Amino acid sequence: MTGIAIMGAGRMARVHAASIIAAGAHVAMIYDPVIAAAEALAADTGARVASSPAEAMGDGAVDAIMIATSSDTHVELLIEAGKTGKPVLCEKPLAASYDESRAFVETAGEDMARKVFLGFNRRFDRGHAAVREAVKAGRIGRLEQLTITSRDPFPPHLDYIPRSGGLFRDMMIHDFDMARSIVGAPIVSVTAHGTSVVDPEIGRLGDVDTASVTMLAEDGTIITILNSRRCAFGFDQRIEAFGALGMVVSDNPRQSGFRSFTKEAPGADAPILEFFMERYGPSYTAEIKLFLDCAKEGRDMPVNALDGHMAACLAEAATASLKQGKTIHLTDLDQEF
Amino acid sequence: MTGIAIMGAGRMARVHAASIIAAGAHVAMIYDPVIAAAEALAADTGARVASSPAEAMGDGAVDAIMIATSSDTHVELLIEAGKTGKPVLCEKPLAASYDESRAFVETAGEDMARKVFLGFNRRFDRGHAAVREAVKAGRIGRLEQLTITSRDPFPPHLDYIPRSGGLFRDMMIHDFDMARSIVGAPIVSVTAHGTSVVDPEIGRLGDVDTASVTMLAEDGTIITILNSRRCAFGFDQRIEAFGALGMVVSDNPRQSGFRSFTKEAPGADAPILEFFMERYGPSYTAEIKLFLDCAKEGRDMPVNALDGHMAACLAEAATASLKQGKTIHLTDLDQEF
Amino acid sequence: MTGIAIMGAGRMARVHAASIIAAGAHVAMIYDPVIAAAEALAADTGARVASSPAEAMGDGAVDAIMIATSSDTHVELLIEAGKTGKPVLCEKPLAASYDESRAFVETAGEDMARKVFLGFNRRFDRGHAAVREAVKAGRIGRLEQLTITSRDPFPPHLDYIPRSGGLFRDMMIHDFDMARSIVGAPIVSVTAHGTSVVDPEIGRLGDVDTASVTMLAEDGTIITILNSRRCAFGFDQRIEAFGALGMVVSDNPRQSGFRSFTKEAPGADAPILEFFMERYGPSYTAEIKLFLDCAKEGRDMPVNALDGHMAACLAEAATASLKQGKTIHLTDLDQEF
Amino acid sequence: MTGIAIMGAGRMARVHAASIIAAGAHVAMIYDPVIAAAEALAADTGARVASSPAEAMGDGAVDAIMIATSSDTHVELLIEAGKTGKPVLCEKPLAASYDESRAFVETAGEDMARKVFLGFNRRFDRGHAAVREAVKAGRIGRLEQLTITSRDPFPPHLDYIPRSGGLFRDMMIHDFDMARSIVGAPIVSVTAHGTSVVDPEIGRLGDVDTASVTMLAEDGTIITILNSRRCAFGFDQRIEAFGALGMVVSDNPRQSGFRSFTKEAPGADAPILEFFMERYGPSYTAEIKLFLDCAKEGRDMPVNALDGHMAACLAEAATASLKQGKTIHLTDLDQEF
Repeated sequence: MTGIAIMGAGRMARVHAASIIAAGAHVAMIYDPVIAAAEALAADTGARVASSPAEAMGDGAVDAIMIATSSDTHVELLIEAGKTGKPVLCEKPLAASYDESRAFVETAGEDMARKVFLGFNRRFDRGHAAVREAVKAGRIGRLEQLTITSRDPFPPHLDYIPRSGGLFRDMMIHDFDMARSIVGAPIVSVTAHGTSVVDPEIGRLGDVDTASVTMLAEDGTIITILNSRRCAFGFDQRIEAFGALGMVVSDNPRQSGFRSFTKEAPGADAPILEFFMERYGPSYTAEIKLFLDCAKEGRDMPVNALDGHMAACLAEAATASLKQGKTIHLTDLDQEF
Repeated sequence: MTGIAIMGAGRMARVHAASIIAAGAHVAMIYDPVIAAAEALAADTGARVASSPAEAMGDGAVDAIMIATSSDTHVELLIEAGKTGKPVLCEKPLAASYDESRAFVETAGEDMARKVFLGFNRRFDRGHAAVREAVKAGRIGRLEQLTITSRDPFPPHLDYIPRSGGLFRDMMIHDFDMARSIVGAPIVSVTAHGTSVVDPEIGRLGDVDTASVTMLAEDGTIITILNSRRCAFGFDQRIEAFGALGMVVSDNPRQSGFRSFTKEAPGADAPILEFFMERYGPSYTAEIKLFLDCAKEGRDMPVNALDGHMAACLAEAATASLKQGKTIHLTDLDQEF
Repeated sequence: MTGIAIMGAGRMARVHAASIIAAGAHVAMIYDPVIAAAEALAADTGARVASSPAEAMGDGAVDAIMIATSSDTHVELLIEAGKTGKPVLCEKPLAASYDESRAFVETAGEDMARKVFLGFNRRFDRGHAAVREAVKAGRIGRLEQLTITSRDPFPPHLDYIPRSGGLFRDMMIHDFDMARSIVGAPIVSVTAHGTSVVDPEIGRLGDVDTASVTMLAEDGTIITILNSRRCAFGFDQRIEAFGALGMVVSDNPRQSGFRSFTKEAPGADAPILEFFMERYGPSYTAEIKLFLDCAKEGRDMPVNALDGHMAACLAEAATASLKQGKTIHLTDLDQEF
Repeated sequence: MTGIAIMGAGRMARVHAASIIAAGAHVAMIYDPVIAAAEALAADTGARVASSPAEAMGDGAVDAIMIATSSDTHVELLIEAGKTGKPVLCEKPLAASYDESRAFVETAGEDMARKVFLGFNRRFDRGHAAVREAVKAGRIGRLEQLTITSRDPFPPHLDYIPRSGGLFRDMMIHDFDMARSIVGAPIVSVTAHGTSVVDPEIGRLGDVDTASVTMLAEDGTIITILNSRRCAFGFDQRIEAFGALGMVVSDNPRQSGFRSFTKEAPGADAPILEFFMERYGPSYTAEIKLFLDCAKEGRDMPVNALDGHMAACLAEAATASLKQGKTIHLTDLDQEF
């Protein structure tokens, strides 16, 4: 049975711990600078508490490492993990900034970067994965237009906004990765529009809460991403891939099969799923399972630090596009991964 | 933390064990005549193995009892459980035969029967529950027609047929209970039709594999139940309640939000859920949680041995109707619960 | 251009006149005992008014005859039409009573009966026709269960009830024909249940307003028909055909593609179509077009007086079943068509 | 009964003639430089053929004028029609070019321009209209994101491309008008992207066949329009309006209520409507009816030449944006209407 060391004992660490157990592995070590948090999670999982990341990662009972701490510690912990030679899964984003992300990839090198599983869990959502597989299998012929809609149920607290890095780096990062995972060719330009119609206070803090990004891929595919920080009817997460032979869609799943045909609610279905764990819970479980399989077999990770860096690169371009009011053309260099 | 003794260590015992843990309780004791099965489940749940039902049920660490053994042992174990005074959940059916079920209810008395949670898990399916609640809340006005469709993905092994008690007692029993849980008035007549078009061998064994039952309630509601032992597109489980102000439906949930608009699959949604654990898994979890809550508070069970007996009564009437080729009118006596 | 004589100048005559023009034919003659009605329709269609059915039918400009008068005149007019040798379309029902219907078919003979197009327009509804074609093409394998739901938006005036012949002859007649058009084998038994929960006054007049009929076909197919005289959410007209390889459904079309995901209406689609002309208008046009094609080519009518008689036979059996409280077994004789 | 003069006797003239008759008006005069076409349509509608537009428009039997000729004759005929003072409906586009359109509006003046009904029929599509009404009624609160998808079943003949004016003027013109009819504030910027992935030959002719346009309205609403000249699964015509309180959608209507749950087609609905007359036929009828009502009552037209000009203005901006590779900011002048 595989033993895992988890860096961090917060919300995502708990989500991952449950998936680890469900996948038949176990949590061996936990490190968190907040000792009480580490001890609480250790008690619930049967793990031991380490006094440093190095101790946790290096322990003989540890076969693989999971980094679920705050973004600004990711790179440091990845470097530490690299020393052990053990497989590692790192929560998104790869790094706190684009520059840091670029530095890490350049320093670590491609080979090592491919050994780091980057936690873009949405790739493993059943509906989204079915869209990607249908496109890859050629069922819609050549992909021509890809539209990703991603709207959170409600905005984060205002005090999070200044340290979030902005909507493109904090929220749309998932959609940039999703686009890359479906489109077959490098992305060559990014054009962003954004407003703060949800909460003008977000605008005053220098960010947007509603945004649209158009990207062109080298093969002519037009990609559209729509984001909003607030959605009144639940967690709106959809993908639409249109091609020469048709269209495939990942629509919002409903809470149940309930339908109403009453006068006051004629033709009403059950509402869509509302929160991220309700919608994406199964995708975390699938992600952990895949990571453990790859770890066991020593394979390259199917979604890795290079993907994390490329998504950061697109977020950087979108941020620049919005600021400069023009299309940003990506250099060949940025597209080499 | 509530400790549970589980009688049985088979498939349903494992399903319930997982729900018990998810609900924050724990499995304290396990009894199964097959020692190896008991030990395996005990190892996975941290429980101890008992050498007799009495030992398991009577243990000081046990707060509540769960009976998940074969049907023919239910009544004996219920009587044993009754001696402890501890709350008990019994898997459906209540007893191996209608006569045994009637004898148990008469002997135990109504008060005790109401303390036995009967495992009609489908009542706790999110879509089915929403239909029942909408009807009870008057959202469709007076209920006039209730239609329940219930089709298994594939028939049981032929050697199970002779000891199954027949389709009405083995499979439609869930639908009889569902009908009773939605309709507000006693059921007064049962008319059954059946054929063996799925597998003529099932007919030769004296059973049917495709059936339709029409029941009338005292208030004029017409109830239709459609069953098939085999369904090519998954686990077809639907309810349709029609009334003076409209209709509410519990439709089959899809595997995901995937939709296809290609030439070869124009307008295709993801298939419906296929197996009973995929469809009804969450309903087992909800059932166990409710049982534990009722147990803790010493409340009557919302679905109990009286419901189990009444469903058996309707199954008996349907079996007789099919055999005799005529409508069976239920006596007032049978409807007293 | 084909010239048509229409018997009757009421609502259905107007519906048919519009379809005749849309199909590229024209209304040549109109007869109605109410002269003013005949003249009004003639003015709107460019037709002439005849002073007797014989004059209208026999006119040289008339190539085909359409009977859209009240039920009690159908047989008399069919006999008159028979003398001209011209093709004829008769609105359902074939006759005012089962005895009259039987007498007509026996007197006219099968050959002539096959030349009378019987106006079961619902066969030509796009969704219903697709179900029938899918079943006939074997796409669901052997048909095992057929369920037809048919609910009118609101009940007829109470003074119509006594002369309607009862729900089975007046309303369910369409569903009996639909069942026969989809099921491949003769129907051998009919079991009816009915209540008057919509309006007890209908019960006092000796009729039911809510009914369920179960029929068995010779090949083991179980057919269920559900009727209600009132439906709060529109004109509920659905068919569900279940077989060895799957299920095909004709669901209620929506008024438009409008969907709402607001808090007050989460997941609401546009309501279903409400009235019979909105839902079945296109089926009348398709019916007339098919009739004109068959007329021009002198072919047997695909839905004819024999079908009208058989539907009447099933309605008769259902009426008897409800009255006698038992299953009615049809004789071989009744099934010979 | 209102008499109409139709300029033109081509396909759209025939569509409108049918709507005129259905609306209870009649075609009085027809003018078409191709005499044979004029005579054929006159024969089918009971109209007379005129030898000049002036003769047709000026005839005493003519109460209103319909212009359904090629785009390059619209302005000339509108000026001619203006002399009669009779109400006029003009097919889209208002003029063959933006300059001509601007000149017409400036010369005619706003008052007269408001008397010209501009044939943006899609505004009267039942689903699209329901979206607009829901937005206007505040059911989604403040509108924040509007997404319009519009894909034709197949591209026009290549020899049409050079004289089409390009995708933005020829095809997206409908979507520009639709956006304006839903968004409450003036549009301030237009950013276009386009490729020729459907047919590279279209690219060689200087046009695009796949395009995306992002527009910002003065109130911060972000508008996205997606177009393709070819769609494998039918006529893809959708609108999605997202706001503070939820989302309303106009989805593609299906051909029927047919649904399939077979192994080879699990969860398949009927395909969407395929051709423009199937999808938008009812919207033409509604448009003509509204025009006749406004004409009779002497009201300003709800969609008029000013709307035609504004849509042309947006098409012009999109064309420039694509060519220049940058966002075009609209001047206040262009937004005065």
